[in-house]
Amino acid sequence: MYDVQKIRADFPILGRRVNNRPLVYLDNGASAQKPRVVIDAMTKAYEEEYSNVHRGLHYLSTVATEKYEGVRAIVARFLGAPDPDEIVFTTGTTEGINLVSYAWAAPRMEAGDEIVLSVLEHHANIVPWHFLRERQGVVLKWVEPEADGSLDPQKVIDAIGPRTRLVAVTQMSNVTGTLVDVAAICRGARERGVPVLVDGSQGAVHRPVSVPDIGCDFYAITGHKLYGPSGSGAIWIAKDRMKEMRPFLGGGDMIRDVTRDAVTYNDPPMKFEAGTPGIVQQIGMGVALDYLMALGMENVAAHEAALRDYARERFRGLNWLNVQGDAPGKGAIFSFTLDGPAHAHDISTVLDQKGIAVRAGTHCAMPLLEHLGVTATCRASFGLYNTTGEVDALVEALELCHELFA
Amino acid sequence: MYDVQKIRADFPILGRRVNNRPLVYLDNGASAQKPRVVIDAMTKAYEEEYSNVHRGLHYLSTVATEKYEGVRAIVARFLGAPDPDEIVFTTGTTEGINLVSYAWAAPRMEAGDEIVLSVLEHHANIVPWHFLRERQGVVLKWVEPEADGSLDPQKVIDAIGPRTRLVAVTQMSNVTGTLVDVAAICRGARERGVPVLVDGSQGAVHRPVSVPDIGCDFYAITGHKLYGPSGSGAIWIAKDRMKEMRPFLGGGDMIRDVTRDAVTYNDPPMKFEAGTPGIVQQIGMGVALDYLMALGMENVAAHEAALRDYARERFRGLNWLNVQGDAPGKGAIFSFTLDGPAHAHDISTVLDQKGIAVRAGTHCAMPLLEHLGVTATCRASFGLYNTTGEVDALVEALELCHELFA
Repeated sequence: MYDVQKIRADFPILGRRVNNRPLVYLDNGASAQKPRVVIDAMTKAYEEEYSNVHRGLHYLSTVATEKYEGVRAIVARFLGAPDPDEIVFTTGTTEGINLVSYAWAAPRMEAGDEIVLSVLEHHANIVPWHFLRERQGVVLKWVEPEADGSLDPQKVIDAIGPRTRLVAVTQMSNVTGTLVDVAAICRGARERGVPVLVDGSQGAVHRPVSVPDIGCDFYAITGHKLYGPSGSGAIWIAKDRMKEMRPFLGGGDMIRDVTRDAVTYNDPPMKFEAGTPGIVQQIGMGVALDYLMALGMENVAAHEAALRDYARERFRGLNWLNVQGDAPGKGAIFSFTLDGPAHAHDISTVLDQKGIAVRAGTHCAMPLLEHLGVTATCRASFGLYNTTGEVDALVEALELCHELFA
Repeated sequence: MYDVQKIRADFPILGRRVNNRPLVYLDNGASAQKPRVVIDAMTKAYEEEYSNVHRGLHYLSTVATEKYEGVRAIVARFLGAPDPDEIVFTTGTTEGINLVSYAWAAPRMEAGDEIVLSVLEHHANIVPWHFLRERQGVVLKWVEPEADGSLDPQKVIDAIGPRTRLVAVTQMSNVTGTLVDVAAICRGARERGVPVLVDGSQGAVHRPVSVPDIGCDFYAITGHKLYGPSGSGAIWIAKDRMKEMRPFLGGGDMIRDVTRDAVTYNDPPMKFEAGTPGIVQQIGMGVALDYLMALGMENVAAHEAALRDYARERFRGLNWLNVQGDAPGKGAIFSFTLDGPAHAHDISTVLDQKGIAVRAGTHCAMPLLEHLGVTATCRASFGLYNTTGEVDALVEALELCHELFA
């Protein structure tokens, strides 16, 4: 039984008021709030068990190392990955995708080689590939979404040509909530011998993930969107791809031997983790993922699907509200504009007066907004602790906006 | 008046026991413990004021952004830098130096170009330059320390030749505590038109820093060694160098405009900060630096100089103890071995039984250990909260080691 009120009580910040109203936090697509177990785990780590990790032989170092390294197995379990050594710790999806771009793609791509992207992508899954375009002449091939915001897997597969070296695609749009059938894309790409990177920043937050079922080569997640600390994250990398990667960041821990004339590198995953890592935030991410698995991601998905259906239904009653995208199976993420002169920023400011936190702008997805023909939207992105009452509060505040700006 | 007992009370972990003894934490060179104000600031950030930063218009986003961006000015003040916009947030010195290597050095260096390094360097200030050697034929020129562990600035300056494009040098050795006269090096390098990167990982922790007085081009610090959270850090970059840098990590926040065919970048420092940053840990680092400035870095330096002198004196009485390096003005960092068969790891294990945390190994400085002719050392590295009583506890435990292994 998914008791959302009980779950809300786990998140200290949800009890606060903003502008003299109860906080209605609908900016989960940007970053999620943290349950008390995560915050407490970090406090405990700093107050009782803090040390640098690896190679230390003293008690605190051993404790910190065990807790930190234990997170690899938690992430692996969360992603359905068979082997914790396929998990590389990062500071989030942005670093994860840059790792793939610098360590795997850059050394193996030549001018004219192609990367297939969807127009749904977040800048984190665009700009690292633009670097390869700018610096070494790699060609970016874009696949457009359908009118309802969905992405046809076959169109992605059809975009693969003889020069395609990588497909990089999101599992869920952070703007429209579109769920992408990444497994179908991976099947088609595999037949053509092309690796696939999946941006799991949103996808992993809202539904169960199994990287073997998806069949991808890279799957990146961000801890702070997964109810974990800022600066935490990981990327799952297939063993065969790991073997093809050169190091990315250089420093301590990722080396085996350093002399004046030479350097040899540690085995993966350590080869890709340089210097003192984000020890405490990764420990916190492990606690967050355990929290999610205890709730059950299928239960989270069901709760959010109900929220999505309720919100969709309520929004249908607002004939001056333009919601971007309504793909089947989409997540509980709604980007919208209002008829009339109100800019997205005006709307979010009015909502804020009612204690409702939404995001306004381009959501780090400018090519998608250009495709949609809008310069900015408001985005209400729901999480596991949101309620139908909060949907009602949003609708009420939107009605006020409509009156104000009509 | 520097009241070390009062200061110790600020650090929750220092009250704990390890192996039934009071914790004697002498592993500060690897990472420092955190005062309660830092831990509490992070808890408050997560419990009351958490949101993603930048471009959000709602209340929590505004609060989080103000706190996060406010840290830039704190770092600037801590480093004596005139302009907060010269501060780039990083996850620590390792990322900071990799940023310089990838974004400034890599695009402007050709095969045969030289980087001058000292043999004192930490792997974080070696491996990123080895990448340039491996990948584009850059030549690393090494400057050896003197017999007492000191580094002669003139030898560094003399190593600069017509092909030298960068000098990369630490301000303080993490192995021997050697303090390097980086200002003298910068004066000589500037006359020769060569930029200087200073690794401030240790230097900034133990004494006041003024980047204008040093005259360097890059100065990197690590938050977790500065009594701040893991995963926090910054690098000060001279404006002229920033202008020469291309972006490093690609993603949100660091762009101005993204289309399918092109990308334009944000102004520095944001140009070098991709994706959601380490929001809460950077806020925590700001609190840690404020804490240090309230103590007064000159007072910290005086306290640690007294500890160094006391420890040096006590160590002199142990004629079976071999301390590596004794340069004038060195920091309170002591690497040592014992006569006889005891390996550094054995010693640290015995010390741990007495509740004393030291590090054993190569301290991410293999070229220096090779130069010193040792395969591993034990390292006791003191911080602002250590006491002469803890020196005595260390000496007593070392005497036990000597008896055990003699």
